Amino acid sequence: MITKLIEQIQEKKAPIVVGLDPTLKLMPKTLVDKWINELGQTPEAVAEAMFEYNRQIMDACVDLIPAVKPQIAMYETFGIPGLYAYQRTVEYAKQLGLIVIADIKRGDIGTSSAAYALGHLGSVKIGEYTYRGFDADMATVNPYMGSDSVRPFVDVCKPEDKGIFVLCKTSNPSSGEFQDRIVDGRPLYEHVAEKIEEWGANNREGDYSNVGAVVGATYPEMGERLRKLMPHTYILVPGYGAQGGKGADLKNFFNKDGLGAIVNSSRGIIAAFQKEEYAKYGEENFALASRAAVVDMLEDINSVL
Amino acid sequence: MITKLIEQIQEKKAPIVVGLDPTLKLMPKTLVDKWINELGQTPEAVAEAMFEYNRQIMDACVDLIPAVKPQIAMYETFGIPGLYAYQRTVEYAKQLGLIVIADIKRGDIGTSSAAYALGHLGSVKIGEYTYRGFDADMATVNPYMGSDSVRPFVDVCKPEDKGIFVLCKTSNPSSGEFQDRIVDGRPLYEHVAEKIEEWGANNREGDYSNVGAVVGATYPEMGERLRKLMPHTYILVPGYGAQGGKGADLKNFFNKDGLGAIVNSSRGIIAAFQKEEYAKYGEENFALASRAAVVDMLEDINSVL
Repeated sequence: MITKLIEQIQEKKAPIVVGLDPTLKLMPKTLVDKWINELGQTPEAVAEAMFEYNRQIMDACVDLIPAVKPQIAMYETFGIPGLYAYQRTVEYAKQLGLIVIADIKRGDIGTSSAAYALGHLGSVKIGEYTYRGFDADMATVNPYMGSDSVRPFVDVCKPEDKGIFVLCKTSNPSSGEFQDRIVDGRPLYEHVAEKIEEWGANNREGDYSNVGAVVGATYPEMGERLRKLMPHTYILVPGYGAQGGKGADLKNFFNKDGLGAIVNSSRGIIAAFQKEEYAKYGEENFALASRAAVVDMLEDINSVL
Repeated sequence: MITKLIEQIQEKKAPIVVGLDPTLKLMPKTLVDKWINELGQTPEAVAEAMFEYNRQIMDACVDLIPAVKPQIAMYETFGIPGLYAYQRTVEYAKQLGLIVIADIKRGDIGTSSAAYALGHLGSVKIGEYTYRGFDADMATVNPYMGSDSVRPFVDVCKPEDKGIFVLCKTSNPSSGEFQDRIVDGRPLYEHVAEKIEEWGANNREGDYSNVGAVVGATYPEMGERLRKLMPHTYILVPGYGAQGGKGADLKNFFNKDGLGAIVNSSRGIIAAFQKEEYAKYGEENFALASRAAVVDMLEDINSVL
């Protein structure tokens, strides 16, 4: 899968991914109201709005971006109807040829992690039939429980042609509370980084493995160090834009060939229409505002590569 | 919520919780086949079997147990139909008066954690209506991303009368890879334990807080130490039975008054009919086998308290 992601990144000259994290606050009121008028003040109405919001943004940006990253939490908030919108979003993105990075941050003991891995990346056999639950291309994984919790995700990568990104140093303000603690003279996230390289060792496709890492844009010095510590690991970089990361901070996450990292922006792209600089598009053209924000993000990031 | 859990534990003299983790391997073949005959080899059939399996086990054990702990991974494997079975299981358990501990191990940056917390424990407003997604009583949370990822779950506890259990030292074999690493002279899980006490400080109900901890039965020495380090923290103890933990190992997880811990068993109870000692019940009476296994588990655990 990492080969497919790299091909898309190179073809579109776009080492970026758009986070599809719809909320009632971020979606245009007109869009939400349209569905509430049709289906009432119900989670089904919100779910329809979420899917339409995502669909319009994807339609407007598909030629510019290699991938999307739906944050499943935003859908789980609305229960089953929300998860149905998540599923439709994954399906639609794949129909458009976009790679789907499911931001699910799952992790559990072996048998439960295997269940998550099969549900989100793999498949289950029911009698003679094979059934795919959510069927994303890649997924984020939480490493706190150790190798036997990550392995079931790693194991699904090769047979199913999928990939994962394991949390290493996350973008949020208090990520340091545990991740930065010093263990044997080095921060814990460096030990996690070593394990990520190890987990990926049998999952290489060319220079990179299907086991990637999450390292926040908000910590550029750590990005530089982690880039070196994980030479075969693709880095998913959240925290650009709304969380404070800037293009100039990102150079060190990349290798000299301009590969090795993919930068995510969520709110900065999907709610661009709410920002002064894109207000001219108007709420009804929110997807065009998103497209303009993607163009600007690409210019910012490609200028430092 | 912790008060309600303690009341149920005392009333039933049962510091235990039954893990509702149905899989195709664990469920009786006759039950699965019944639904496949009706609905075909489909996830919908498996989901119906899962719900009926859970329902029969809960019906058979409700007078003996205070709580159930559905592992959401087992349901997510089967996509939306699976999650619908999860939702029905939560609802049915609550109708029976059982406390539901949602084993979801979620955790993300602030806004996403808030979305999870509202979806699984809280509610969202849609216009004038309040909608509850999965509405469990308590949930497990992953601390790797630090305070701002755990806080949204903590914050929902008081207004919604809910509780959480934060992963501290998990029961799986490789939990030590990161959790046991020495930070400032002590294992990382002890630093997590301190934070758990801190997160619970404003969430006390009597002696205990609504912010609990997960500590695996498979590590009894650590259980003893963590019991002392977290005096106001209820401990959810997985790993009993199938994962290797025994009653004699559990004494140290409890306080002298017999409170302070609740021990989970999943496979050992729900698939008891597959074990030689309960084979006499026969596959069709799987729920009675589960009841017998609960009785034996209670005897084992109460003998050391």
